[in-house]
Amino acid sequence: MVVFDGFQLLDVFGPLDVFGSLRDKISIVIIGEKGESVKSSAGPVLKLDFTFANAPKIDILMIPGGGGTRREVKNDAFLKAFKALAEAAPTVATICTGAAILAKTGLLDGHKATTNKRAYAWSTSQGEKVHWVPEARWVEDGKFFTSSGISAGIDMALGLIAKMFGKEMAVSIANGAEYVWNNDPHHDPFAKMNGLI
Amino acid sequence: MVVFDGFQLLDVFGPLDVFGSLRDKISIVIIGEKGESVKSSAGPVLKLDFTFANAPKIDILMIPGGGGTRREVKNDAFLKAFKALAEAAPTVATICTGAAILAKTGLLDGHKATTNKRAYAWSTSQGEKVHWVPEARWVEDGKFFTSSGISAGIDMALGLIAKMFGKEMAVSIANGAEYVWNNDPHHDPFAKMNGLI
Repeated sequence: MVVFDGFQLLDVFGPLDVFGSLRDKISIVIIGEKGESVKSSAGPVLKLDFTFANAPKIDILMIPGGGGTRREVKNDAFLKAFKALAEAAPTVATICTGAAILAKTGLLDGHKATTNKRAYAWSTSQGEKVHWVPEARWVEDGKFFTSSGISAGIDMALGLIAKMFGKEMAVSIANGAEYVWNNDPHHDPFAKMNGLI
Repeated sequence: MVVFDGFQLLDVFGPLDVFGSLRDKISIVIIGEKGESVKSSAGPVLKLDFTFANAPKIDILMIPGGGGTRREVKNDAFLKAFKALAEAAPTVATICTGAAILAKTGLLDGHKATTNKRAYAWSTSQGEKVHWVPEARWVEDGKFFTSSGISAGIDMALGLIAKMFGKEMAVSIANGAEYVWNNDPHHDPFAKMNGLI
């Protein structure tokens, strides 16, 4: 998970909680641009495991949204380093306005993607060659998984787990978290609520 | 939010994400027993803002569950300090097996409460004088709010916000997080799933 100051807590820790159930099979690492830690938009401070300069090989690269995305889409050093990680990773997943950062690298050009429905206009303006999908809980296109706003990251992460480890595993994790999984990527009540369809 | 090594990520950051939407009205602080940080069960490390020794006055005290609860229910120093904070706080909320820690202090004796449905037998054994409610998304009894497992903390936190800031505010926060709020504390499909009713 790549993080930055002003990240949205649930964007990061929803997906990492469900992947945390697989911690006998995978390792979770937190990567930032520089320094030792980042501060979330809500306040709590998360320690970095790596910076872009020493990041390990990543199987599933994820990036959250949050107010800090407005700064990072203008941060060339961040974009360049994130783009390099995203090019190397076999799977790249965004949560909420994290899609704006991935779009800004150009890697989403020509791909289908979705993003936060309340910040849809801003987020989609970061990638005019992306085929943005307004009504979607999450979108899978090739190696890119993009989810809608905040809590949608949990549903997408369970979808990723279903794909990689089987649907039974995803259902078991959701039930263990007492989470009612919206497992249909097309079911998105928030598109209409925000006037996008 | 009181934390400890082996805390469950979503127990902490689900509620803190929704309370984070009120950050012009409230401050979120992270409190641990000692040291500078704690490590979640999934791996990510969270920085402490305070320890029990210098914790500020708390309006809403919260405690998560996670594997670390099994250690903390046997940690007298932790229990004593947490009990003092819980006695002083006007509102105390637990997520998942965090209820086991609160129960172990004795403060829940004679009160209705709920907890994680998969770890129900262990959690409820920590407080034999508590009136445990097997089928509940969350339970409010006096100043105590106890939620069911992991993701249930989000529903309870929105319930707390509805009570303190009005239902319209809670609905607005849920919609902004693109979260389908289970706003009925009695609706709990996981009690039956785990054979508790």
